[in-house]
Amino acid sequence: MLIAKVIGTTVSTIKDETLKGCKLLILRQTEVDGIPFGKPYVAVDTLDAGIGDLVLTAHGSSGRLTAITKNKPVDAVIMAVIDHLAVNGDVPFKKE
Amino acid sequence: MLIAKVIGTTVSTIKDETLKGCKLLILRQTEVDGIPFGKPYVAVDTLDAGIGDLVLTAHGSSGRLTAITKNKPVDAVIMAVIDHLAVNGDVPFKKE
Amino acid sequence: MLIAKVIGTTVSTIKDETLKGCKLLILRQTEVDGIPFGKPYVAVDTLDAGIGDLVLTAHGSSGRLTAITKNKPVDAVIMAVIDHLAVNGDVPFKKE
Amino acid sequence: MLIAKVIGTTVSTIKDETLKGCKLLILRQTEVDGIPFGKPYVAVDTLDAGIGDLVLTAHGSSGRLTAITKNKPVDAVIMAVIDHLAVNGDVPFKKE
Amino acid sequence: MLIAKVIGTTVSTIKDETLKGCKLLILRQTEVDGIPFGKPYVAVDTLDAGIGDLVLTAHGSSGRLTAITKNKPVDAVIMAVIDHLAVNGDVPFKKE
Repeated sequence: MLIAKVIGTTVSTIKDETLKGCKLLILRQTEVDGIPFGKPYVAVDTLDAGIGDLVLTAHGSSGRLTAITKNKPVDAVIMAVIDHLAVNGDVPFKKE
Repeated sequence: MLIAKVIGTTVSTIKDETLKGCKLLILRQTEVDGIPFGKPYVAVDTLDAGIGDLVLTAHGSSGRLTAITKNKPVDAVIMAVIDHLAVNGDVPFKKE
Repeated sequence: MLIAKVIGTTVSTIKDETLKGCKLLILRQTEVDGIPFGKPYVAVDTLDAGIGDLVLTAHGSSGRLTAITKNKPVDAVIMAVIDHLAVNGDVPFKKE
Repeated sequence: MLIAKVIGTTVSTIKDETLKGCKLLILRQTEVDGIPFGKPYVAVDTLDAGIGDLVLTAHGSSGRLTAITKNKPVDAVIMAVIDHLAVNGDVPFKKE
Repeated sequence: MLIAKVIGTTVSTIKDETLKGCKLLILRQTEVDGIPFGKPYVAVDTLDAGIGDLVLTAHGSSGRLTAITKNKPVDAVIMAVIDHLAVNGDVPFKKE
């Protein structure tokens, strides 16, 4: 899984019909302190995550193993919202 | 999923026989403002996307979970055409 | 799928027994003009592609969805030989 | 599989309900001497690995092939704790 | 598949119980001349490959499609030992 920050939303009228009602959020991978880097990607939100939340995303066929994403053409899903991260005795990220 | 721009088409006479009639488009991943970067890749179009459209592509086995791509040797599919993207209160991309 | 150029062949006496008779070609990914870049990789050829051909390769489990690669330990297959590529009104690649 | 060092833990109250009780550790890939590099990622721990351990992680659908991760939306699992690594006659890493 | 050189071995006492008896080798991807580059990774050896051998590795779910790796939490397997590579009329690698 990747640690990522939710940075935005996508709106699409034309999409695969199995995706009606799926919330598709834009994310960027982050370091353990929650600072984003790298390229944007899109994942299905099944946990009502909000903009600015730090989350974990599962990719590939694993992205389809939730009740909401089963058998749909999606390759990434938010499967946890992070409360805090502990690294080497420090807490580099804590949700406000 | 990746945010990508449709930049072209591929024409192949010799191909796996399950691919007859599949529309194979060339894309480049983009930033949230729709500006492309990086290497070209090819995805099956199931939504009648056009050159210049910003789309979402699903990869791997998830690329086969549409009615058109089922059981075919393809690893990427366009599963949504983007109307607009909202990031941090801005709208960095809006379809014209 | 990736756009790639066939650059060579591999010869192996010792291999998984399901691979006897599989033609394993060496490729490099290319830009839309057919100029190769990046690292070599190997894919099964099911279309009698030749050295120098520009092809499309499907990866991961999708690489096993041809009659020849079914249930074999291979993760990439040539599923189309490219005649030409059209990008933004140009034809940056055309097979000779 | 990747060689990686366990560097921390994640705590999440809101998560896919199949993940209750799953221990999610933060790792960084390492060289053969155990020195980490690159970006953090998260894997399920099924072996009671500890902070500082060098481990092997399996990715993608293979990450679901343990008794603990079966059918869950996770894409990486720790499937071995490394005792030592032998490279070209040397032992660049040995667990203390 | 990737062209890779076997550079070492891993020893693990604590591992997923399905992996008892699996030989886990360390590899680095190579160019067509057999010169390694990049980061180390680990694959299951099903062909009795030796240190220094040039091999092909299959990744992802394809890594589980051998008699030895079936249903195990492994994502890479050595499925061929390379005798020689032919590129553009040359033989940049030949096994000694």
